[in-house]
Amino acid sequence: MKKTDQNGCRELTLRQTARFLKRHDHYIILTHASPDGDTLGSAYALYYGLNEIGKTACVICPDVIPKKYDYFVRKTDHVKRENATVVAVDIAAKSLLGALEEEFGDAVDLNIDHHISNARFAKNLLLDADAAATAETIFELLKVMKVNINDITAKALYTGIVTDTGSFKYTNVTAKTHMIAAQLYDFNLNAPEINRLMFDTKSRKLLELEKMVLDAAEFHFGDRCILLPVTAEMQLKTGCSGTDLESIAVISRSVEGVCAGLTVKQIGEEEFKISLRTYPPFDASAICKKLGGGGHKGAAGATVKGTLEEVKARALAAVKEAMEETDEGTSAAE
Amino acid sequence: MKKTDQNGCRELTLRQTARFLKRHDHYIILTHASPDGDTLGSAYALYYGLNEIGKTACVICPDVIPKKYDYFVRKTDHVKRENATVVAVDIAAKSLLGALEEEFGDAVDLNIDHHISNARFAKNLLLDADAAATAETIFELLKVMKVNINDITAKALYTGIVTDTGSFKYTNVTAKTHMIAAQLYDFNLNAPEINRLMFDTKSRKLLELEKMVLDAAEFHFGDRCILLPVTAEMQLKTGCSGTDLESIAVISRSVEGVCAGLTVKQIGEEEFKISLRTYPPFDASAICKKLGGGGHKGAAGATVKGTLEEVKARALAAVKEAMEETDEGTSAAE
Repeated sequence: MKKTDQNGCRELTLRQTARFLKRHDHYIILTHASPDGDTLGSAYALYYGLNEIGKTACVICPDVIPKKYDYFVRKTDHVKRENATVVAVDIAAKSLLGALEEEFGDAVDLNIDHHISNARFAKNLLLDADAAATAETIFELLKVMKVNINDITAKALYTGIVTDTGSFKYTNVTAKTHMIAAQLYDFNLNAPEINRLMFDTKSRKLLELEKMVLDAAEFHFGDRCILLPVTAEMQLKTGCSGTDLESIAVISRSVEGVCAGLTVKQIGEEEFKISLRTYPPFDASAICKKLGGGGHKGAAGATVKGTLEEVKARALAAVKEAMEETDEGTSAAE
Repeated sequence: MKKTDQNGCRELTLRQTARFLKRHDHYIILTHASPDGDTLGSAYALYYGLNEIGKTACVICPDVIPKKYDYFVRKTDHVKRENATVVAVDIAAKSLLGALEEEFGDAVDLNIDHHISNARFAKNLLLDADAAATAETIFELLKVMKVNINDITAKALYTGIVTDTGSFKYTNVTAKTHMIAAQLYDFNLNAPEINRLMFDTKSRKLLELEKMVLDAAEFHFGDRCILLPVTAEMQLKTGCSGTDLESIAVISRSVEGVCAGLTVKQIGEEEFKISLRTYPPFDASAICKKLGGGGHKGAAGATVKGTLEEVKARALAAVKEAMEETDEGTSAAE
């Protein structure tokens, strides 16, 4: 058994987690705010799995679940708060619970996650930092629990895996990721349709926004950094918002020669959400930490206050610093 | 043993093909014209495999091999034409040999392919129409031959698979595709870098072209069809050509609600290359056949002569016909 750390967080193995889930009942499964395919896919796959073994469970998401996930999202059970067992999935820190943080931040009985940065805020933690997606771990958990997987569970799990791996493109993919995908193909998955919904469907208003953003694109530091501003005006003119804007970050990582792609999206009068996508040797998480944010090595974010010009300057300074450190490291090694 | 058909083409099993390759020597391996990741990956993986068992082989491509494939393309052996055994990979019809058709069109000893439309022009044929990529079949062949696979072979095979499946997104993917990918992860694959090179790297000039094409985009048939014109002027202004233009077709299949995406690219004074991407129930191959072309169900093409307006009208008429047939089928079934 893994030991309890100073936060009072006990780390569990897959088998211990399986036993935990079989022993308890009346589950409230929490996703993180601004839900993505992995937190939702993991939550619903766990919900369907618990239902299969006769447990009552509900899924609570702090934000509205985007319609594109309708193919695996269903109305869940009613679970009373009092006697509930609270499970968080794919949640690295309690602040990511958003509107649910106050109620549930200190009440999570079990957290199932794959972020190496996990803040150990739950009483019990199943953490596999080598998993490309939390959905990988949920798949393994359902297997260990010998729970029947059905088509909708498979769709939820596959969604988690493809969204967190960019459809098997990112550095987090392992042989295991593909082995699990192969097993999910035993079900009526309709994987092309899932990929289409997750990656290859853009609205006409998003096409419009992309045109505007490309017109405003800036290149910096010998074209190694691209900065894409998404102003409130652009969002207003096109009607784009929220998850529509994720795809702009995708553009930022796709330009030849660019190893740091910044998307600077206005979210308030003088407030911007920065999304950073990097390629090795640059660490997006380390750069965004300097801006008060965090994330993964290849993709991270931060919220920065100020005018567009101020925020751009701060973000570019953080990128520049990382580039200078790397350049020095390179020349020192020569 | 599978029988010989009226063309004199003998269909082989994997084992028979393995025996064929062990029995012969001095291989000339041919790729198709306008080479893609699958024909090149298959050709080089086969080349490395044959080298491993002491055979001499060379790879001949009818066109210049794009630089982005440099990570698995090497100088191959010198093989004399006279006593060579000619192997074609991923070539559905002899016309796809391009500049090599005259010399090799009737001289192919063995063709390894996965196109259901294969025209059986070779003396021997290993055809697996269920394979997502010819590279899948080459992988299985090397396994049956018990040939050592090394890092560069794995990279070539992985490239073939990801390029023909849009990184595991298309309808041709099966559990086997993922099982093979999992096995290729045993090697020093650097899959994220391969995916980056194949899918997520666009030049600044391509960004420019995309902006222009989006400005000229037309929607037809209740927005179910998008038409993206790529004129000679646009190509000239941006400096984009050839494979740069593939990504425009990708845009054409990505717009919400669109089930037929047409890219109409000028390739001569009055000559256009049409690329069609469709979603079920529309069959791109059937639609392009009407225009004198062909391809797969989800992606096909044709070359059409005429002015831009004439070519657009012909292409749209073919799409409209398919839509009307489908709509009638649907209402008849109601």
